Amino acid sequence: MSKISILMGSQSDLETVNEAINLLKEFKVDFEAKVLSAHRTPKEVAAYVEAAPKRGTRVFIAAAGMSAALAGVVAAHTALPVIGIPIETKNLKGLDSLLSTVQMPPGIPVGCMAIGKAGAKNAALFALQILGTGDKAIQKKMVAYKAKMRKHIKSIKLKV
Amino acid sequence: MSKISILMGSQSDLETVNEAINLLKEFKVDFEAKVLSAHRTPKEVAAYVEAAPKRGTRVFIAAAGMSAALAGVVAAHTALPVIGIPIETKNLKGLDSLLSTVQMPPGIPVGCMAIGKAGAKNAALFALQILGTGDKAIQKKMVAYKAKMRKHIKSIKLKV
Amino acid sequence: MSKISILMGSQSDLETVNEAINLLKEFKVDFEAKVLSAHRTPKEVAAYVEAAPKRGTRVFIAAAGMSAALAGVVAAHTALPVIGIPIETKNLKGLDSLLSTVQMPPGIPVGCMAIGKAGAKNAALFALQILGTGDKAIQKKMVAYKAKMRKHIKSIKLKV
Amino acid sequence: MSKISILMGSQSDLETVNEAINLLKEFKVDFEAKVLSAHRTPKEVAAYVEAAPKRGTRVFIAAAGMSAALAGVVAAHTALPVIGIPIETKNLKGLDSLLSTVQMPPGIPVGCMAIGKAGAKNAALFALQILGTGDKAIQKKMVAYKAKMRKHIKSIKLKV
Amino acid sequence: MSKISILMGSQSDLETVNEAINLLKEFKVDFEAKVLSAHRTPKEVAAYVEAAPKRGTRVFIAAAGMSAALAGVVAAHTALPVIGIPIETKNLKGLDSLLSTVQMPPGIPVGCMAIGKAGAKNAALFALQILGTGDKAIQKKMVAYKAKMRKHIKSIKLKV
Amino acid sequence: MSKISILMGSQSDLETVNEAINLLKEFKVDFEAKVLSAHRTPKEVAAYVEAAPKRGTRVFIAAAGMSAALAGVVAAHTALPVIGIPIETKNLKGLDSLLSTVQMPPGIPVGCMAIGKAGAKNAALFALQILGTGDKAIQKKMVAYKAKMRKHIKSIKLKV
Amino acid sequence: MSKISILMGSQSDLETVNEAINLLKEFKVDFEAKVLSAHRTPKEVAAYVEAAPKRGTRVFIAAAGMSAALAGVVAAHTALPVIGIPIETKNLKGLDSLLSTVQMPPGIPVGCMAIGKAGAKNAALFALQILGTGDKAIQKKMVAYKAKMRKHIKSIKLKV
Amino acid sequence: MSKISILMGSQSDLETVNEAINLLKEFKVDFEAKVLSAHRTPKEVAAYVEAAPKRGTRVFIAAAGMSAALAGVVAAHTALPVIGIPIETKNLKGLDSLLSTVQMPPGIPVGCMAIGKAGAKNAALFALQILGTGDKAIQKKMVAYKAKMRKHIKSIKLKV
Repeated sequence: MSKISILMGSQSDLETVNEAINLLKEFKVDFEAKVLSAHRTPKEVAAYVEAAPKRGTRVFIAAAGMSAALAGVVAAHTALPVIGIPIETKNLKGLDSLLSTVQMPPGIPVGCMAIGKAGAKNAALFALQILGTGDKAIQKKMVAYKAKMRKHIKSIKLKV
Repeated sequence: MSKISILMGSQSDLETVNEAINLLKEFKVDFEAKVLSAHRTPKEVAAYVEAAPKRGTRVFIAAAGMSAALAGVVAAHTALPVIGIPIETKNLKGLDSLLSTVQMPPGIPVGCMAIGKAGAKNAALFALQILGTGDKAIQKKMVAYKAKMRKHIKSIKLKV
Repeated sequence: MSKISILMGSQSDLETVNEAINLLKEFKVDFEAKVLSAHRTPKEVAAYVEAAPKRGTRVFIAAAGMSAALAGVVAAHTALPVIGIPIETKNLKGLDSLLSTVQMPPGIPVGCMAIGKAGAKNAALFALQILGTGDKAIQKKMVAYKAKMRKHIKSIKLKV
Repeated sequence: MSKISILMGSQSDLETVNEAINLLKEFKVDFEAKVLSAHRTPKEVAAYVEAAPKRGTRVFIAAAGMSAALAGVVAAHTALPVIGIPIETKNLKGLDSLLSTVQMPPGIPVGCMAIGKAGAKNAALFALQILGTGDKAIQKKMVAYKAKMRKHIKSIKLKV
Repeated sequence: MSKISILMGSQSDLETVNEAINLLKEFKVDFEAKVLSAHRTPKEVAAYVEAAPKRGTRVFIAAAGMSAALAGVVAAHTALPVIGIPIETKNLKGLDSLLSTVQMPPGIPVGCMAIGKAGAKNAALFALQILGTGDKAIQKKMVAYKAKMRKHIKSIKLKV
Repeated sequence: MSKISILMGSQSDLETVNEAINLLKEFKVDFEAKVLSAHRTPKEVAAYVEAAPKRGTRVFIAAAGMSAALAGVVAAHTALPVIGIPIETKNLKGLDSLLSTVQMPPGIPVGCMAIGKAGAKNAALFALQILGTGDKAIQKKMVAYKAKMRKHIKSIKLKV
Repeated sequence: MSKISILMGSQSDLETVNEAINLLKEFKVDFEAKVLSAHRTPKEVAAYVEAAPKRGTRVFIAAAGMSAALAGVVAAHTALPVIGIPIETKNLKGLDSLLSTVQMPPGIPVGCMAIGKAGAKNAALFALQILGTGDKAIQKKMVAYKAKMRKHIKSIKLKV
Repeated sequence: MSKISILMGSQSDLETVNEAINLLKEFKVDFEAKVLSAHRTPKEVAAYVEAAPKRGTRVFIAAAGMSAALAGVVAAHTALPVIGIPIETKNLKGLDSLLSTVQMPPGIPVGCMAIGKAGAKNAALFALQILGTGDKAIQKKMVAYKAKMRKHIKSIKLKV
């Protein structure tokens, strides 16, 4: 039973989304991941989002680029939290994806992450933090993850 | 039977969209106009877009602001041409609406107009030009409209 | 016991943040709200964020403008989810607040909302959606809230 | 008899415009394509645009970069619909081309596509959608094209 | 015989262009000014630009907003220097006018001024500097004008 | 005796400025070119600009990147026309150079060209157009240059 | 003997710069303030900057808008630290002033503050922090100032 | 005893920060450099900043990218001057780092440098200028450094 469902608008988004997937594997948390496009498969997105909670989904992650409607459209079909990853783009460097994902109108929130791979990794962490609000085990792993980051940074010896 | 269907994402968009409506009235071309939101009423948008051609729709106009998904979502549900009007916004001055409307991924085109009222007026003209490709009467009116604009500009006497 | 803690960087942010506060009142969900600045009261922010979970906090909302470090600094001190509201600014229209809030480096996520009042309202809804992942009553209210929005939009009669 | 006329401002635009050309070939729809610059050959643009309808043109596509005046200048000389492709640019990444193409003043619409290759492909599809409003065969092919895209996306198996 | 010809794309541009006109009056240099639009009266622009040198024009000034094609189109029709004034715009604050005016492709230069009234005043000064390269009297007035500015600034007594 | 003086803020600007230099060589017009920085050699800039007219300078071209003060500082020291070339930059892609060069305050005009090589080539052409206002031979060459460009474009045969 | 010298490019900048002046008065630290423009009075700027250290200046503050060359030009003439205030602008909202002030080329630093009044106040504080590196009394006042800010924030009682 | 303390948010920032380090080595001024992140090691940043003055620190330099909170957070914990280096970023080219570093709210100044390596080099020079306000030897070296730059530029012989 996957509590986290990841959608991406195009197969080429996988390279970015893998940052999220690898993090979830590291945390050993189940997830499902699928390519579905708000513009090319609108009905499949609606059907998927409505069916997912029955399979256990508690949080959605949606990654898309350019006019990145996917996260907003997922949010339109669910009352569960939706996290958006704005995919980097060739011409406008992800500014289009970012504004399309973050500037949601009142009533339909999307929790937007940074553009690209940093955002993808953080989407996974944020999904885990959400699940962690009701799951001590995940929350504990998150605390450990942060401690490890801190320890890593403190251990860096610069050669200057 | 209305050949042009206008959707807007929020009632507050009407002030801008009225530029399109007034132009269509001036041309005496039937149209229908409705508030439907890609984010708040996704199923109603889908149902409306699929039913409209049976009522005569040949062109859609969609106006929305911020993360302006409406035009793209309309285009997702139809093979008819969709014209997008990016609504001006308080903070980012319509740049968010513009990029969300124009930066459509390959496969699902939206014909994007300028931000705000200029774009709304042009959306109506563009819809008429599309209908005019198969309707001599409309095309003739369009030619006359352009001639009138030209005449008006030529008649301006500057006091300098 | 407040499950939602709202911080804002300046008293002048309250006008925007009230959109979140009013929504939480409408949902009858307890919250606490406080002015604390990442730049002017860094230790108080740290102390507050560390103590809040003991009082029941499960989600943080942080609102700040300009170089909007607050949400990121809150996220630095907790493993709970942090939602960021970029406050509109006089000169750069909130673009500075948006990029400072959303472009978080990998490891420390912030779920960023839209600039200004739309974002503030959505921050409250998103916090409720997060709590709703483990609370059927809140989730039910959220479903009802979305249904009401949909109904409202469908009821609009345009005079055109 | 070509119903679609494609102009580009520079020979180097062909790499981008080929996305449109290949799509039209795939649809087996006749077109003509020519390099003409609004700035370097203004009279030839005017003459070409005025003569094209006599050869069958029903829709224009114009691609240009930087201060991309071409689509607007084509629109100045015709009452037929004009679709604009903003060419990507070295320094401003196509933002200059986009704003020059999309921000048309009231009275002279241009249906603007996304920057670069995505926009070029969509320009062809949009031109076909326009022709399809009066041509059942094209409209049918467009419906089939969209169905094929949908099917392709649904068939993707992610390896995660 | 006017050596400076001013074109503006719309009557509403006159408020901005008056900064140029007043400066030319102050310098007692003849000029002509006219409303002509690259998009609404393309042939009249071409005819005007080609005829003007016979009436004495040595420099053109062109002011336009949004997709500001006017200066570039004037430059397309003449080998004389063309100065562009990007008019301020409601939504994008003149960024659209600026990029449309300044980002001219190689081969067809436009000397672009700042957005709005500062740019309009400077357009007049720049036109005079151009004429001054071959006219000692104008050059002398320009030197005096700069000396007066300097004197004015040096005379300011701040109350602090 | 060089009628055109070219300054650039850094030796690395030469790659861009060569577009101007090659054009001037093609026109067989004398020029001088020098590296001088508004920030690193302010006095040398002042001295150079004041002395140049005695050597025959009638027009200045100034190329600089980042906070591109050079063109404005040259304009501060002369009543002759100054043409600015905003050099492309690594991070902000020349947007910094562009705004620093074009947004001159009222009283001190700079005729700004496009960012980078296109701008450099146009700077040379614009300088020649300025000289051409008082020099029939240069004006004639300019007319021939434009005719050649037109002819070249008309000769292009696309393989599509 | 004033250790802080404030220059501003235009008398209209005083409204913004007064935020700095009032702060310095509050700290009872002597300063001098003058209107001098890098573009309209370049020699006076050079003379002023070179003479000021003899009158006691240890830090410069320079405020300017649009193509804001002033801080960079001051820095060109001194080895003392220069603090830049980018003045807000009508059209580009101070983005032009900001990039012109902050994007200094290597070799000539300017310590840039935020756009407008926030930046002006901080310029005064930063100048005092610089003086404070060698002046215990000023440093002590700065510590007290920060403590007062902290206390003020902690005292705020929100009515929510 | 190091008078200059350099912090950077990530080890990957060192490539940029080395421009500062090399300059300080060239000036033979002691410094210390450390990786500490405002988001991953907030307490370590606070502890470091509070302890550094006891080891001799008189100026801080802080380099960070994306939502670059580091310089502001350092400034929150000290009354000493803080210089910020906005690190270049993959997607938004350092615009995010720049706005996060420079747009500090009133009360907590950061002296912001240019994006990337130019800014890093200037951060070192600016730190030295600050120390130079109370140290004749450093000030003298700075004057010599500027003279050397000037001489170098004057010595450049262009081959054109």
